[in-house]
Amino acid sequence: MFDVIAFDGDDTLWHNESLFAMTHERFRGLVGPYASVAAREDAAAGEQLAAALDERLLATEMANLKLFGYGVKAFMLSMIETAIDVSSGRVPVDVIEQIIDAGKHMLAHPVDLLDGVRHTVDALAGQPGRRRLMLITKGDLFHQESKLAASGLAEHFWRVAVVAEKNPAVYRRVLRDHGVDAATFLMVGDSVRSDILPVVEIGGSAVHIPFHLTWAHEAAPPVNDNPRVWNLDRIDELPGLLDKIDGRPDVDLR
Amino acid sequence: MFDVIAFDGDDTLWHNESLFAMTHERFRGLVGPYASVAAREDAAAGEQLAAALDERLLATEMANLKLFGYGVKAFMLSMIETAIDVSSGRVPVDVIEQIIDAGKHMLAHPVDLLDGVRHTVDALAGQPGRRRLMLITKGDLFHQESKLAASGLAEHFWRVAVVAEKNPAVYRRVLRDHGVDAATFLMVGDSVRSDILPVVEIGGSAVHIPFHLTWAHEAAPPVNDNPRVWNLDRIDELPGLLDKIDGRPDVDLR
Repeated sequence: MFDVIAFDGDDTLWHNESLFAMTHERFRGLVGPYASVAAREDAAAGEQLAAALDERLLATEMANLKLFGYGVKAFMLSMIETAIDVSSGRVPVDVIEQIIDAGKHMLAHPVDLLDGVRHTVDALAGQPGRRRLMLITKGDLFHQESKLAASGLAEHFWRVAVVAEKNPAVYRRVLRDHGVDAATFLMVGDSVRSDILPVVEIGGSAVHIPFHLTWAHEAAPPVNDNPRVWNLDRIDELPGLLDKIDGRPDVDLR
Repeated sequence: MFDVIAFDGDDTLWHNESLFAMTHERFRGLVGPYASVAAREDAAAGEQLAAALDERLLATEMANLKLFGYGVKAFMLSMIETAIDVSSGRVPVDVIEQIIDAGKHMLAHPVDLLDGVRHTVDALAGQPGRRRLMLITKGDLFHQESKLAASGLAEHFWRVAVVAEKNPAVYRRVLRDHGVDAATFLMVGDSVRSDILPVVEIGGSAVHIPFHLTWAHEAAPPVNDNPRVWNLDRIDELPGLLDKIDGRPDVDLR
């Protein structure tokens, strides 16, 4: 039934949001002490200050999205801008330096595959006549390619597309570029907003495997009422699901 | 003879290096006054200090290339890092803010097509049965796509590939992905290192159109002794060259 199975990268194949969460924590620790009097008085407890800093950082990221796009370099620049902003310019330059170091640490971090990924991708790639595997991942081209190279999975993918945004027009272009028919295309990913909804909109199918962390910008409710969307708890359930679909396409398998 | 003509973007279709040059100038003005005593004593005259700052910035960019890749965001982060470094941490935070503003100005800058580009691409795209046009451009995915959208040229390109690096392996992958035969592929660009040498290496052909500014990292001598490389002064000479090649493939046209 499906000729091409495409995987999202971040938080579908490898850890990503946990690195951002770690750096958020570090950002709060570095910048909190310099938050302006107004920001600190607004926040009675430490936890509230942390929430206020998170909110300001997210607002900066959203304001910069049109100019920067996604990725760690954009995040680094937004952290620097927010640090200057919330401290009313009083943040010391060595904190800026430490923010840059924290970002570089994210970029240099080894790629940690999620549980079950290696086994599942190996198994599916071991059936070359049956289906082809793609990686369709959003974000910074250079960093995504670096992560793919470090993942040890690159040889398993027939095609790789790094895209700046995941919307119906972009999926249409990727499928057209690679000669893939949407009717036989299945996307696997953790983001309802990026991996599920736009694929269904162009006539494809999708498997949602939620990750326990979701960036506020990506948050969206799951899809439970679409016959072309399946929800799995773990990626190692995917080969079994595909076997069932292939064997009994008329059965509702959700 | 050539089925697919591919263009580089930066400094082949639109201005790029001139924006970097402008920002370099601004960086020198912002950071020069805070350069450490050592840096300033080394530089007797103002011009030497500028050269010293350029050198330090280039060294930072090269050191960060493996982690950041190419593009304006990488350049912004390297400027910030260099500013802190050459001032021994004494650069005020408002200079950091102005560096970020200068980078955002680059990202938001309108796309200025080079002379003759609109006319030439229009003319070549007006022969759809004869050949297909591609854009193969290196750098930040998000920014390159933004520039293409702003260029008004997007509809003329059959395919677009933004790549993190331009080397033989990447050209091979792009041609394979899009089903293009290297023997009928012609790349047009301003960089000998990125647009000419790797294309010739994989069996393609190339037209070099130098731009008056070249980033130190891209500098390479022109190729004058290869029958599959042509050197033009201006892009509007390209349709005439292609007509000649199509009509008289046995004549040495260099």
